[in-house]
Amino acid sequence: MNLLLLFDYIGTFVFAISGTLTAANKRLDFFGATMIGFVTAVGGGSLRDMMLGDTPVAWMRDLNYFWLIIAGVLVTIAFGKVVMTLKKTLFLFDTIGIAVFTIIGLKKALMMGINIPLAVMMGLASAVVGGVIRDTLCNELPLIFHREIYATACIAGALVYLLLNFLGMNEHACEIATVGSIITIRLIAVRFDIALPKIELKE
Amino acid sequence: MNLLLLFDYIGTFVFAISGTLTAANKRLDFFGATMIGFVTAVGGGSLRDMMLGDTPVAWMRDLNYFWLIIAGVLVTIAFGKVVMTLKKTLFLFDTIGIAVFTIIGLKKALMMGINIPLAVMMGLASAVVGGVIRDTLCNELPLIFHREIYATACIAGALVYLLLNFLGMNEHACEIATVGSIITIRLIAVRFDIALPKIELKE
Amino acid sequence: MNLLLLFDYIGTFVFAISGTLTAANKRLDFFGATMIGFVTAVGGGSLRDMMLGDTPVAWMRDLNYFWLIIAGVLVTIAFGKVVMTLKKTLFLFDTIGIAVFTIIGLKKALMMGINIPLAVMMGLASAVVGGVIRDTLCNELPLIFHREIYATACIAGALVYLLLNFLGMNEHACEIATVGSIITIRLIAVRFDIALPKIELKE
Repeated sequence: MNLLLLFDYIGTFVFAISGTLTAANKRLDFFGATMIGFVTAVGGGSLRDMMLGDTPVAWMRDLNYFWLIIAGVLVTIAFGKVVMTLKKTLFLFDTIGIAVFTIIGLKKALMMGINIPLAVMMGLASAVVGGVIRDTLCNELPLIFHREIYATACIAGALVYLLLNFLGMNEHACEIATVGSIITIRLIAVRFDIALPKIELKE
Repeated sequence: MNLLLLFDYIGTFVFAISGTLTAANKRLDFFGATMIGFVTAVGGGSLRDMMLGDTPVAWMRDLNYFWLIIAGVLVTIAFGKVVMTLKKTLFLFDTIGIAVFTIIGLKKALMMGINIPLAVMMGLASAVVGGVIRDTLCNELPLIFHREIYATACIAGALVYLLLNFLGMNEHACEIATVGSIITIRLIAVRFDIALPKIELKE
Repeated sequence: MNLLLLFDYIGTFVFAISGTLTAANKRLDFFGATMIGFVTAVGGGSLRDMMLGDTPVAWMRDLNYFWLIIAGVLVTIAFGKVVMTLKKTLFLFDTIGIAVFTIIGLKKALMMGINIPLAVMMGLASAVVGGVIRDTLCNELPLIFHREIYATACIAGALVYLLLNFLGMNEHACEIATVGSIITIRLIAVRFDIALPKIELKE
């Protein structure tokens, strides 16, 4: 089985859990939670595919995404408190998720002949847009805009991928190194509480 | 004249009214109200068509939608208080609207070869996304995520449609039965104040 | 060099500045500001292209947009206070921006065979949707829905363009007259504090 696809499935499942947890905090009902779980998991990839014109969007062509998301929502509803004690596991899988979504978005855009900086942006969008829509629908300022190194880790990972690829490393090794570097950057950022500076307008 | 198209027009008109009423509550100006009327009426179908890749999106190919929405906005602005006293009529037409949008989304997705569960989701998206965008733009937690049986009625209707279709019932009868069952479910839910349980994370 | 393209570049640059200023007000971090700068600048055109089915969306096919947005964000972060003292200049360029985005959206839709009223809407969407997404992501009621003549100026400009075009005026003159009339309307509206009436529901 394709490594990237396996990681993609894991990321989808974990993103659905993260969406459901946010929805539970807002005291949404069962349907609301399922819907937030869905948009968190597929929002980024859908926007990427709609912007690139690769339609129907990816998750509509493989039913596994659907069942993984439903499973993520149900697991969270059934074992919510337990799920929340698994914070570190979730954090790790979530980081694997954004790493893989970044790589998938980047590769797809490059394959369609998009310029490198824009392909990096498509990778980033695949990884972060789901969470942005989740927070916006839940009527909150998107987490990613004001907390923690997150997008920065994705961009760094994308650059690692491009560099190793340019140096001729084989595809699988590139992917693993990218996922590894994104995890490392994010772990270091959280461990040492590193965040991007808030913007203050200067004279 | 095609029955589904007629219902589609009614739904579009009523959704434009619902958008304008929400905008008036937020004390938006005339343009704001018109824009909210538009996104409420066409948001769901547009997202569906962009995700499926059936572009230009449906309402750009038939000018009637445009005029129906303008009419819905103007009627609401001119006779707002009267419109609001027609609550039961609006409720009925709104329910017809979501029923028809569900059927249209479902049928279109099936015709494009999308898997059944995902086609049901496309039906649901056609019906509810307009209202979600309306509430998000008006800076409120989307109504549909925390109040009333609504999406559930759409999903049940979609299943009724699929079942009757599978049993070989003719197209028109399927559509009428679907609309009927969605109306019935929603009426019962409102009458007996049935709502989905809010999510509470369990041990 | 193409006049419309030059104005398009200016508009993109100024929209990125406006997004970054809003983000700074919300005390977002560097990444958040960049992302808001991007969606403000490309949101309208992206939605237009996704709805029309002209993909990959325009800004993914010309790397200049990317660098102009990055430049707009960096300039704002580096010289924020200075940028804010240039209010009148920003206002002028912003108005040029919406004027040009309106023309581009209108022309593109007409070329794709979209009906005139809907093509005007595509022009309007190109001009205003970026700002709407900016405000929604920053968790505020979109400015455009309740303040100032803005969309109205775009629509009036689109009609001027269509009229002059219909009268056989040459393309360049049409464009300049359109930009001029949008600037004039907006200046007059701001100078005399003209706004659309807020909606109040009538008996």
